[in-house]
Amino acid sequence: MKQSVSKRGTIASIASIAGVSIPTVSRVLNNHPDVAPETRKHVEQVIEESGFIRNRVKQGLRKKSSGIVDMLVPGLDNLYSIEIVRGVEEVVSRTNLRLALSVTHDTLQLEQRWLTKILNGGATDGAILVLSHGQQQYFDTLYQHKIPFVVVDQRGELGPDIPSVGATNWFGGRTATEHLISLGHRRIAVITGPPSLRCSQDRLAGYRAALDNAGIPVDPALIRSGEFVQETGYDQACALIALSEPPTAIFTGNDVQAMGVYNALRARGLHIPHDMSVIGFDDVPLASILSPALTTVRQPLMEMGRVGTTMLLRLIAGEPLDSTRVELTTTLCVRDSCAVYHSGI
Amino acid sequence: MKQSVSKRGTIASIASIAGVSIPTVSRVLNNHPDVAPETRKHVEQVIEESGFIRNRVKQGLRKKSSGIVDMLVPGLDNLYSIEIVRGVEEVVSRTNLRLALSVTHDTLQLEQRWLTKILNGGATDGAILVLSHGQQQYFDTLYQHKIPFVVVDQRGELGPDIPSVGATNWFGGRTATEHLISLGHRRIAVITGPPSLRCSQDRLAGYRAALDNAGIPVDPALIRSGEFVQETGYDQACALIALSEPPTAIFTGNDVQAMGVYNALRARGLHIPHDMSVIGFDDVPLASILSPALTTVRQPLMEMGRVGTTMLLRLIAGEPLDSTRVELTTTLCVRDSCAVYHSGI
Repeated sequence: MKQSVSKRGTIASIASIAGVSIPTVSRVLNNHPDVAPETRKHVEQVIEESGFIRNRVKQGLRKKSSGIVDMLVPGLDNLYSIEIVRGVEEVVSRTNLRLALSVTHDTLQLEQRWLTKILNGGATDGAILVLSHGQQQYFDTLYQHKIPFVVVDQRGELGPDIPSVGATNWFGGRTATEHLISLGHRRIAVITGPPSLRCSQDRLAGYRAALDNAGIPVDPALIRSGEFVQETGYDQACALIALSEPPTAIFTGNDVQAMGVYNALRARGLHIPHDMSVIGFDDVPLASILSPALTTVRQPLMEMGRVGTTMLLRLIAGEPLDSTRVELTTTLCVRDSCAVYHSGI
Repeated sequence: MKQSVSKRGTIASIASIAGVSIPTVSRVLNNHPDVAPETRKHVEQVIEESGFIRNRVKQGLRKKSSGIVDMLVPGLDNLYSIEIVRGVEEVVSRTNLRLALSVTHDTLQLEQRWLTKILNGGATDGAILVLSHGQQQYFDTLYQHKIPFVVVDQRGELGPDIPSVGATNWFGGRTATEHLISLGHRRIAVITGPPSLRCSQDRLAGYRAALDNAGIPVDPALIRSGEFVQETGYDQACALIALSEPPTAIFTGNDVQAMGVYNALRARGLHIPHDMSVIGFDDVPLASILSPALTTVRQPLMEMGRVGTTMLLRLIAGEPLDSTRVELTTTLCVRDSCAVYHSGI
């Protein structure tokens, strides 16, 4: 974190001089109760002696508080973003801050408009960013203006010093594919999101790893991609069904694509899961409403929002992060859209 | 609008002196292009002569701008609130303001927490309120602090001077019921939201009006109520099916209740629409995804958010509103969940 290097450095040196951990120094600075009284006294003494002004953290930053934390999201027509917003809002609501929400529709233009508002006097204490691509120029501008930020579910490539929260996409892709393999499927198709996005690449790599482990050759005809929208699911499902040797299971890039797959199969009179198993990604509220209820890989979206916000609040308070990059685990939610494969069907 | 009475009075007297309409004065004050040059000159002269300082509107209010418009919503786990938020965000994003979002979970405690943040220095230019009940004490506090606000989809009772945007609930209730009557249904059940809410009462009144017009007696056993949640739909559908003379059609309080009705019917092996017609209210994105796609009464939720925000921006600019209370029309979206009633089934 460029904007807190000096502070972090100071906290680290206090920790080193006092012979305690960085989190302990941080707890002392924040009057956290769970520090032994003696340790507290000792750390406080080192702080005094080292000329580190506690108020620089405690007041210096807070005095300037705008009362606002910003959040940039691609869209609210997108169940997935909304789950992240819910998590962020939940944490922000417990503070004395309010959450300013800006929708970007994944366009540079609207991301830029937000930045312009901020730079033209629209004060902010910090920002949660859900962006399509790693946009280093934004990060640089935010650093320059000393605006702390955390990237949630970064779908582009990030430098190692960018604070971010994501999900274990590779693991999720592997889990989904392994589930289908365990049900006896061998011809397993995958529909990914945009191939340029990191999450698409990681999930696809997980798919390949599961097939490799099971000794199943990867058939390029079964690997499809598109946008994270229903139409992609529909179109790619149609293309897959039309293959001379169609798949018996489809692993989609997200739950919304899975909905498109459902519609394509239904339109052709194919039954889920008997004629085709389908597995999604995300576990948006929609997934359990679909009929049959969708088996999917759950991304802990609300939790990602919560954790990202907690990280941001620490940055705003001038505290060090335990880890710059946090990945929360994905889990398989087994519902009714996958069946055992019988070669006779 | 108490907070702009004096300004409005001034604009009205300028209009009167100049012999033009209030909107024309407002357009001149805001440098709107569509005012004839001569009219503009004349009005400007009256303004000068009357000692009305244009800058009071143009700068006085803007100088203090916090750059923030607030919005209170019941929840983001609720597709219906999200649609309103989308409309509000869309309009706010085009201004130099940002949208601060606070979720209240329909609790007084969280509504109060927001108010506390605002009164403790969390500056705001104005607020869009989506509240469960008409909470006059909030309105009074906001007036006192000269914070303009607009209530969107007020579900409680409002005083006549409260700026608000809603939908034509009575008309929507009548339309839904008339649609079912036109399909030959006579035993039509209704499930409403909480009976204390104005919108529930209005929709029910529309239902009664349609039955009355068609000479169909109202059967109290077919009138049910509950919360705007899936469980209510499920439970009330079960109770309705268990009647000695069950209905052939159900009009639900919202689309989410309709989902509960779908599940109850499915669990009993009843087919929609052949065994039971179902009609919802709202037209959240979910409605068209359900299988069969849900026939529903569309509330223009995004538009309500947009119109409410446009009204709020006028209040912030010190301009008069064309109307304090705006109702946008509901429309019937016919999909696949209602069928012609055949007495032989």
